[in-house]
Amino acid sequence: MPNDDLGAVILKAVKQNRLEILNGDILVVAHKIVSKAEGRIVSLAGVKPSPKAIKMAKEHCKDARIMELILKESVQILRAKNGIVVSETKGGLVCANAGVDQSNVEGDAALLLPVDPDKSASRLLDAIKKKTGKEIAVVIMDTFGRPFREGQVNVAIGVAGMSPIRSYVGSRDMYGRKLRVSEIAVADEIASAAELVMGKSEGTPAAIMRGYRFEKMAKSSAKLLQRSRKQDLFR
Amino acid sequence: MPNDDLGAVILKAVKQNRLEILNGDILVVAHKIVSKAEGRIVSLAGVKPSPKAIKMAKEHCKDARIMELILKESVQILRAKNGIVVSETKGGLVCANAGVDQSNVEGDAALLLPVDPDKSASRLLDAIKKKTGKEIAVVIMDTFGRPFREGQVNVAIGVAGMSPIRSYVGSRDMYGRKLRVSEIAVADEIASAAELVMGKSEGTPAAIMRGYRFEKMAKSSAKLLQRSRKQDLFR
Repeated sequence: MPNDDLGAVILKAVKQNRLEILNGDILVVAHKIVSKAEGRIVSLAGVKPSPKAIKMAKEHCKDARIMELILKESVQILRAKNGIVVSETKGGLVCANAGVDQSNVEGDAALLLPVDPDKSASRLLDAIKKKTGKEIAVVIMDTFGRPFREGQVNVAIGVAGMSPIRSYVGSRDMYGRKLRVSEIAVADEIASAAELVMGKSEGTPAAIMRGYRFEKMAKSSAKLLQRSRKQDLFR
Repeated sequence: MPNDDLGAVILKAVKQNRLEILNGDILVVAHKIVSKAEGRIVSLAGVKPSPKAIKMAKEHCKDARIMELILKESVQILRAKNGIVVSETKGGLVCANAGVDQSNVEGDAALLLPVDPDKSASRLLDAIKKKTGKEIAVVIMDTFGRPFREGQVNVAIGVAGMSPIRSYVGSRDMYGRKLRVSEIAVADEIASAAELVMGKSEGTPAAIMRGYRFEKMAKSSAKLLQRSRKQDLFR
């Protein structure tokens, strides 16, 4: 609920499930509970769609009020076709519907992405440390589609305490050759791994990943996973 | 090595590492050892680049013989820019360099993708079943870049014994609302999770994933994860 102390709520669930948080754990959290705790719920009754939103909603079989929220959350619409709207959000993410989401939200309302998911992750990390003394990393995730491939996968939209990328730049393979694939988006892989234990309809919005030796990073950011428009071959 | 019995090699490694294969396990295998066992190694000395390959290699700072292999493995070049060539392979994958790879390959040679990674996965599944009696699933993976996001992640290019997609079509969320995100590319998430325990330079080309209740599927295919050109908003 809005204004819930998310760290306390999660630690309570950890205890109830007879789990614990250990040093080196990665706490992976669905953005949905972060957005809810941060009050990023919008009652659709109060949304007045603009003429542009009404027009686009008709073209793409969407609720005009949802379309209005998508436009407000976006800086650029990349594609709008077959009922799918892909845009770049104010936070720099490229995803469907600017992350505006009605699933697992109560009543006639929609959920927006956290304003600053890195800051949300960082706050959660600090709260867990304060309450448990444990040094962990936090990954906040959402479920994204992607070009070329069917199905969605979970990706990291907020990161604290660890580098979201494991770089092999300068390392060599078994035969001494420089590695071609040089940077792995480990935070995205962690989000994907967590999805496998969380699912979509079981009401499990957080998971603990244990045993992965992440690279510590004090001032981390999931923005390191965002390709700039200039570098992107598909924008 | 070419003509190695991959199932036997993997089971030997399983034993040497004091591991075991259990019913319901997912064996995740880097495509590299599959390609090697299937003899998909090309000595570059024997590759005669075409004029087109020579021209493109110059433009994109590549070895002309590698460029020749990329063109041969591709049905369509989607982007060629900043030294990066993204194409659709004969097998329908969209990736950099048509999967032609020199890392972890000995000598002046390059490795191609398995001709039919689903068949390779299926053969491996059958071999493991024959030797151990265990019912498992097999995922063969490669490391792909993706639009919009930095860093690469592992994805499934061959699948046997399980559905690569978990569908939520028709299911409802905590509040009874139909789920917006309806199909999760679990085989890709499994590949990404496996990457985290395998890394790129440690010489660990296979992993066992245990405890994930996959949906059994007799005639599975990683092609279910390939979006058709027509459906794709970014082709």
